[in-house]
Amino acid sequence: MSIVVVGSVAFDTLKTPFGVREKIMGGAATYFSLSASFFTPVRVVAVVGEDYTPEHEAVLTSRGIDTRGIEHAAGKTFHWGGEYTDDNLNEAKTNFTDLNVFENFKPRIPDAYQDSEYLFLANIQPELQLDVRRQMPKVALVGGDTMNLWINIKRPELLETLKEVDLLLINDTESKLLSGEKSLVSAAQKILKMGPRSLVVKHGEYGATLFFGDGTHPFRAPALPIAEVFDPTGAGDSFAGGFMGYLASQPKLTPSVLKRAMFYGGVMGSFAVERFGPERLIVLTKEEIEERFKLFRNLTHLD
Amino acid sequence: MSIVVVGSVAFDTLKTPFGVREKIMGGAATYFSLSASFFTPVRVVAVVGEDYTPEHEAVLTSRGIDTRGIEHAAGKTFHWGGEYTDDNLNEAKTNFTDLNVFENFKPRIPDAYQDSEYLFLANIQPELQLDVRRQMPKVALVGGDTMNLWINIKRPELLETLKEVDLLLINDTESKLLSGEKSLVSAAQKILKMGPRSLVVKHGEYGATLFFGDGTHPFRAPALPIAEVFDPTGAGDSFAGGFMGYLASQPKLTPSVLKRAMFYGGVMGSFAVERFGPERLIVLTKEEIEERFKLFRNLTHLD
Repeated sequence: MSIVVVGSVAFDTLKTPFGVREKIMGGAATYFSLSASFFTPVRVVAVVGEDYTPEHEAVLTSRGIDTRGIEHAAGKTFHWGGEYTDDNLNEAKTNFTDLNVFENFKPRIPDAYQDSEYLFLANIQPELQLDVRRQMPKVALVGGDTMNLWINIKRPELLETLKEVDLLLINDTESKLLSGEKSLVSAAQKILKMGPRSLVVKHGEYGATLFFGDGTHPFRAPALPIAEVFDPTGAGDSFAGGFMGYLASQPKLTPSVLKRAMFYGGVMGSFAVERFGPERLIVLTKEEIEERFKLFRNLTHLD
Repeated sequence: MSIVVVGSVAFDTLKTPFGVREKIMGGAATYFSLSASFFTPVRVVAVVGEDYTPEHEAVLTSRGIDTRGIEHAAGKTFHWGGEYTDDNLNEAKTNFTDLNVFENFKPRIPDAYQDSEYLFLANIQPELQLDVRRQMPKVALVGGDTMNLWINIKRPELLETLKEVDLLLINDTESKLLSGEKSLVSAAQKILKMGPRSLVVKHGEYGATLFFGDGTHPFRAPALPIAEVFDPTGAGDSFAGGFMGYLASQPKLTPSVLKRAMFYGGVMGSFAVERFGPERLIVLTKEEIEERFKLFRNLTHLD
């Protein structure tokens, strides 16, 4: 089944302990769609400016990603600058955020995308997420992400949106801020009453936990212990792409499929951080993914 | 095979978000030995004062723990006071530390303990750990723990001790402080060159990672997602007791046995935090342990 992702397609200027990259491809929808494209057909909805060239778009289309939903607007593409230090590779320090054409992004789902069964609302303003969700009323499953900024300044709008999201993927800090709870489990219990039927909380280098709204026991997937994280940018979106992409590739959403999706999420996140930007995802192969899936199994399974 | 543990037997005065307890049983050797006693015969070496009554000792002996190595000295028992807040249940704020008889603790291994094959050096001064280790030259496997204090003020002594420890169990902060490295994996690689053949790094609510010195892929065990941690005191020592106790109960130390030991460590840690002090461990049954072991398996295994 195909999946539509709505989110940012951007340029990133990055500094990590391993070097510097200027204006490379970035944005949640870029990472998500590259990652998910290894599992299922992907369709992107985003906006870019005049500096986004056919060569940039070809990186997506060469992975079979449908880019008809990328709007080309007058002006420049969203450009984010940030850096990571050795002391905290989990959190970026933002140097600049030039929203550019992204500032007036009004996502429109192309008619040709209407037969997609899966929708992923990457981290954009909650009102836009809700608007997109309502543009696709027949969709079978809606996944979503958000961030501290929206939890803080757009809480009512976000709570409205969450009512129509089936599966929320956020990190520890976001889950605690959203719920007002201090323990992971209490936070999850509260969020599962806000709308989502399942919740994935990502713990960075410690993996992620999947909570079910129906009371099924949670499931924990590891992260790969990695000595050198080149560039953490996009790890979360690549996790989401692997997770949702794998779900969309399966005929039925059983607990067993959701557990495997957690592993594929971790696998894709672990590849994303091996090189700058989406470099690693671009040259990745399906065989490498299956190889690493086995590694994740060895990492956690008794036999 | 039986295991000798050397460490503190103490009284704790605790405050957690769930209440207050005055002068209850505590100390690393208490938690370790109660926890390990579910798997293998345990023998304790410690020192207590005149306020440590036969009733206290009976809590250990009723679990079959050999207490002949507990020295009764004139004076009071080591008494620690600490509290945990909702904001940080992982780290205690120390209110007082009355070392009392523990200040002059000179551990002596009773002759009757010499046929034990396993030794666990709980967190005491590294010189004492080394002295104890040399009192048991024929022991087959030595496990050990330490803390930030010794890493900071007794580094040379600790490095000498580590040369004679086979299996070190510490937490994230300690591993980074000991190695001077900022990433978990780099820290582990460095510590495995200091002596230990295997290293367990505990991540609190996120579980623990087992690193092998021979290059075998690491193994990650989860922690149980718990909504209400009553009292985190002793969780790490209970983990160590379950881990080492299970190892000592097995005929051979294969990677598969070490992985199971990680699960039993997590299981025992998860019970320890359910009530104040060692209350939960005291009433625990082997059936409950096996039940929870299955839960840990479900929490992490795909099928």
